[in-house]
Amino acid sequence: MSGKLIGVGVGPGDPELLTLKALRVLKSADVVAHFAKAGRSGKARAIVADHLQPGVIELPLLYPVTTEIPRGEPGYCHTIAQFHDDCAAAVAAHLDQGRCVAVICEGDPLFYGSFMHLQVRLAARYPTDVVAGVTGMSGSWSAAGTPIAQGDDVFTVLPGTLPEAELERRLADADAIVVMKVGRNLPKVRRALARAGRLADAIYVERGTMTDAVMLPLAEKAGDEAPYFATILVPGWEDRR
Amino acid sequence: MSGKLIGVGVGPGDPELLTLKALRVLKSADVVAHFAKAGRSGKARAIVADHLQPGVIELPLLYPVTTEIPRGEPGYCHTIAQFHDDCAAAVAAHLDQGRCVAVICEGDPLFYGSFMHLQVRLAARYPTDVVAGVTGMSGSWSAAGTPIAQGDDVFTVLPGTLPEAELERRLADADAIVVMKVGRNLPKVRRALARAGRLADAIYVERGTMTDAVMLPLAEKAGDEAPYFATILVPGWEDRR
Repeated sequence: MSGKLIGVGVGPGDPELLTLKALRVLKSADVVAHFAKAGRSGKARAIVADHLQPGVIELPLLYPVTTEIPRGEPGYCHTIAQFHDDCAAAVAAHLDQGRCVAVICEGDPLFYGSFMHLQVRLAARYPTDVVAGVTGMSGSWSAAGTPIAQGDDVFTVLPGTLPEAELERRLADADAIVVMKVGRNLPKVRRALARAGRLADAIYVERGTMTDAVMLPLAEKAGDEAPYFATILVPGWEDRR
Repeated sequence: MSGKLIGVGVGPGDPELLTLKALRVLKSADVVAHFAKAGRSGKARAIVADHLQPGVIELPLLYPVTTEIPRGEPGYCHTIAQFHDDCAAAVAAHLDQGRCVAVICEGDPLFYGSFMHLQVRLAARYPTDVVAGVTGMSGSWSAAGTPIAQGDDVFTVLPGTLPEAELERRLADADAIVVMKVGRNLPKVRRALARAGRLADAIYVERGTMTDAVMLPLAEKAGDEAPYFATILVPGWEDRR
């Protein structure tokens, strides 16, 4: 009897945004795995720290590279694919022993998450389930008290890594927008927002659901420094009644 | 001392996808309000039914019209705006008595939700908070086990109500797509997906997190009938490793 693989969304950061289902799975899992950068304990791990059961097996899956090799280079893709293969093998070893493995994931497991790399490698061989979670972007607009989309709005998520001209085109073509992966892309994103006529509406958010959250109109943010996981919200819903 | 207004996301349908924070707020609220169609008890109300406290005041906010008046007609907008004004007044009456009012919302309160109509009318006058929730779309792709977006994917939510040519253009211009409000728009959405070259990837989902969920490749779905809240998922993430 093989075990079960479960991707568990643990929400955007506030431990109270765990779901009842995530909590139940965490308490019954034999193994709790999480992705993190080497040398860090991982945000997902921190979110569930108070709920880990005595005796549970922890399986950290530590990324070998982060920004050392530029994305898009063959070396990067190969290293990351090999890493995901190794992670899948490490998880499979527990599943083969009949253990239930919960892979905890910030936000929602299948929305820009690492869990899907395990799912595509293992779901055909092992019973697999996914527990949906509150996304980081929901946490951000809720903390900012910003209604993001309504009615027939077109809503778009854009990575800040897109080329400037494409960012501008897409910012002008959607009603409601979330820009992720802001970080070093902030000056570019700011220029694209200005040219698309959306800068005045844009809201800058860091660590939305945490006690040290930063939230302010982007137009009032000084400087070009931003963490990688900062988010910019551009609300839709022109007719605000 | 006025009370507090709290928009509470209760998730996509499975009562276990409530967050710990939603549960805490529900248990401490003096008043639990919810939007619903007249004559129905409301999905949000059903999701939290097991957690309503004895003695809590319930405040149903019942839409006077649903599909009787076509959207876009002046009569529709006026009727809905008046309804939202009346709802805000009903909620404010409790807040003025110092009561905490939890407005329960399917999915996430600020993502295509009715709560924002109360928020824009009341947040300037009363302390207001929002508890983020798991969205319906997260529930759908998790139930279907479909990784939706990864890496630098552009992710877009499209209402099925858009004109056919615009649907086709936008379907061809995004990596990952969720089409909402499928209902009577299904034949049009299907044609637009086919012309955009995305029909083969599309997954049709009804009531994703419920025990009576329907999930199948859209290409295999017979007939043109679909409920209003059916969803179509088109996964991004071309490079699936």
